[in-house]
Amino acid sequence: MIRVLVWNEGWHEQRDAVVQEIYPGGIHGAIAEGLTELLGDEVTVSTATLADPEHGLSEAVLAETDVLLWWGHMAHDDVADEVVERVHRHVLGGMGLLVLHSAHFSKIFITLMGTTCSLAWRNAQDREIVWTIDPTHPIAEGVEQPFVIEQQEMYGEFFDVPPPEELVFASWFSGGEIFRSGMTYRRGQGKVFYFSPGDQEYPVYFHPQIRKVIANAVRWAARDTKRQQPEVRNSPRTLA
Amino acid sequence: MIRVLVWNEGWHEQRDAVVQEIYPGGIHGAIAEGLTELLGDEVTVSTATLADPEHGLSEAVLAETDVLLWWGHMAHDDVADEVVERVHRHVLGGMGLLVLHSAHFSKIFITLMGTTCSLAWRNAQDREIVWTIDPTHPIAEGVEQPFVIEQQEMYGEFFDVPPPEELVFASWFSGGEIFRSGMTYRRGQGKVFYFSPGDQEYPVYFHPQIRKVIANAVRWAARDTKRQQPEVRNSPRTLA
Amino acid sequence: MIRVLVWNEGWHEQRDAVVQEIYPGGIHGAIAEGLTELLGDEVTVSTATLADPEHGLSEAVLAETDVLLWWGHMAHDDVADEVVERVHRHVLGGMGLLVLHSAHFSKIFITLMGTTCSLAWRNAQDREIVWTIDPTHPIAEGVEQPFVIEQQEMYGEFFDVPPPEELVFASWFSGGEIFRSGMTYRRGQGKVFYFSPGDQEYPVYFHPQIRKVIANAVRWAARDTKRQQPEVRNSPRTLA
Amino acid sequence: MIRVLVWNEGWHEQRDAVVQEIYPGGIHGAIAEGLTELLGDEVTVSTATLADPEHGLSEAVLAETDVLLWWGHMAHDDVADEVVERVHRHVLGGMGLLVLHSAHFSKIFITLMGTTCSLAWRNAQDREIVWTIDPTHPIAEGVEQPFVIEQQEMYGEFFDVPPPEELVFASWFSGGEIFRSGMTYRRGQGKVFYFSPGDQEYPVYFHPQIRKVIANAVRWAARDTKRQQPEVRNSPRTLA
Repeated sequence: MIRVLVWNEGWHEQRDAVVQEIYPGGIHGAIAEGLTELLGDEVTVSTATLADPEHGLSEAVLAETDVLLWWGHMAHDDVADEVVERVHRHVLGGMGLLVLHSAHFSKIFITLMGTTCSLAWRNAQDREIVWTIDPTHPIAEGVEQPFVIEQQEMYGEFFDVPPPEELVFASWFSGGEIFRSGMTYRRGQGKVFYFSPGDQEYPVYFHPQIRKVIANAVRWAARDTKRQQPEVRNSPRTLA
Repeated sequence: MIRVLVWNEGWHEQRDAVVQEIYPGGIHGAIAEGLTELLGDEVTVSTATLADPEHGLSEAVLAETDVLLWWGHMAHDDVADEVVERVHRHVLGGMGLLVLHSAHFSKIFITLMGTTCSLAWRNAQDREIVWTIDPTHPIAEGVEQPFVIEQQEMYGEFFDVPPPEELVFASWFSGGEIFRSGMTYRRGQGKVFYFSPGDQEYPVYFHPQIRKVIANAVRWAARDTKRQQPEVRNSPRTLA
Repeated sequence: MIRVLVWNEGWHEQRDAVVQEIYPGGIHGAIAEGLTELLGDEVTVSTATLADPEHGLSEAVLAETDVLLWWGHMAHDDVADEVVERVHRHVLGGMGLLVLHSAHFSKIFITLMGTTCSLAWRNAQDREIVWTIDPTHPIAEGVEQPFVIEQQEMYGEFFDVPPPEELVFASWFSGGEIFRSGMTYRRGQGKVFYFSPGDQEYPVYFHPQIRKVIANAVRWAARDTKRQQPEVRNSPRTLA
Repeated sequence: MIRVLVWNEGWHEQRDAVVQEIYPGGIHGAIAEGLTELLGDEVTVSTATLADPEHGLSEAVLAETDVLLWWGHMAHDDVADEVVERVHRHVLGGMGLLVLHSAHFSKIFITLMGTTCSLAWRNAQDREIVWTIDPTHPIAEGVEQPFVIEQQEMYGEFFDVPPPEELVFASWFSGGEIFRSGMTYRRGQGKVFYFSPGDQEYPVYFHPQIRKVIANAVRWAARDTKRQQPEVRNSPRTLA
């Protein structure tokens, strides 16, 4: 049983009628629904938002979370540093993390990457075509090659992140850009997946292929180990 | 002409007679001497220490630095956050960075890696044998396969850093441990090399093979481009 | 249910009393026993050897194999090129392959790697200590950090293979050498794992940690997809 | 001084008026001209074709070649296996190799990769936009981000090659496809670069940005070492 927590800042859903119409249950709600639909008894899915006490990310909650999904856009700066530090510690200790779309600029992703995480963007109803680059990867299992998102915000290269451990997906945009849209990273004991499709103004999280990718990624990121951040050790000479 | 700056916290040299005897000109002095010896007219070599104003790492100095070498151990916390942020910005903008030995716990390296950078260690006169894992790499060019450091502090796995872009060297220790001792990373526009041999209590920076590696790494890390950190761009539709 | 086939040339077991005593049921028998012990109902395990018709690797057999394990040493040249070509095709089509110890010089591994696959070796009762380099990897799950093989043939760097996709394990040897002992590769639709411990003159395949690694690797390499080698396609313009 | 040899099968130039008009001096001639133009005194550039004795790739010639460029399309099967084996040996021994466009199906590339090297294609005047994915890479130094090839054959994913050591360039095509168009590999002592732009029916090798990439790649692939293929070694116990 994988314990999943879908976190969303929830800013747009409170302010923007267009987004409210697309995501009446919130972006987190749509993502949680997709996970329950595809993974059923394999998972328990909870949600949390910025407005919750401690943003819904207390030590106790994180200790009971196998995989955390993170969506944010307008309120990155409102996430408390203390909470970011806590999430960081849990990721390095073995909690899986899925970083979605505009969360490329979240504090937790920037902290994990060590780079600016900047990119090119354009909100102009671009067509996005997502290609599988690594067909052996569990996150690509059963995903159509390629699949199309009729309308999407464009994210383009150069994306300033470290070269990924695995490039699983890359995207074509009608305006001439490409983007490494699905990438894995390993940090400490934890597995991290960045997946770019998913703007608030398009119903991307209802797309069956997107839901498939996210469900696969949850399975991939979950680890069945004691949560423990790597630590410095003064080793006695006992082996040789 | 590569402009090199060798930075050293300089803590041990002021307090510890053993270290003073091994490195009368400071660890930075020994490293600078090696670079001048091997690279001659290819480089200009300067040094700076923690005690200098702004730790010798002002905006003006960094703007004139192609490759920065960093040695620290006891005084990581005394490096001002503002200076770390500045160095980080320059690395992402294209300045090369060589991170040496105990600087695995420096603020700048932890910031760039996004992990704890913890490891196993033992200061017990271990023998270290350094093996080239990537013989095609410019940093390994002309380096003996393997080379021996008669006495060294042991650094052992698990070393909590991201999987490197390139594993150039790995080390054997007489106590039974191994360590990924030479690794490259690309962050933003900048190239980073971590190289583990080099404790203050052993004359490692006089070792001809160590000097060769560091000289090669300076050449490898230097980039002949305008210093410019990646930035977010709102791209018009002009290409397709 | 993962269908596993353990292949062994079986040369030593027919000629060498020492090996017969260590592996009375053959090296393949010991490996198969370990898989059954650890994976139970998850797997069906068969074995085949060089002496079988078509080496036990007919088209029909491979079509029903999810993961193939390969052990060979003295008789690499006796494996028919036609069979190697067939195994290669199945790996590229999605069959998992575990390449064990001296099979680094097997025709199938050399074909998949494109390099000489040469290395340094010494048969002198070296102590081997196996360190986990990637603790997040499913093949390392539950494996002791480190584990010791009291006596083993030494395999040392430089090991002439492509840089692996993932470096899971690396080994220390008492004679001063190190070796990348557990590495993953992705080729076509297939997943490949090379694991170096396992000489015929030492009872390595009875070692509980070795058995754990091989069982984990079987799970990792198995793919639940239609066997299909990538093919060239002349694509009509239908997407944009 | 880098000794460069540009090899071309030369099939189209002898049979196809369109190609003869685009490349009156042959594809090899255009590439050689670009190298001389950009690298001047740094290089000596020779050419050879399939029709030459031993295809112009005798042992003596290869021994005097630092970087070999390979263009082929229709006549892959006419390249003698003995010559392929010889080139392979030299690459593993340290000769640089640049594999261009349709040479993805050359015997030497397939041998080095160990995969089918298959891909999707369409010859329909697609627009190609080449994006730099690794701005720190020497092969991308000074290359425009992005650059456009007005008309080109489309090459699309999935490209069945091993994950590259470095993904330097990736391309967008007007028909909706993407392609990893510039990738590095390290094999033995040798450095290999695959670069996809360059069809015989489009004047791609006169494009200034293409010429820049190929010139950079020649510099990157050249190694100043004794040509020596890795070999198996029985190592005495002398180090520890």
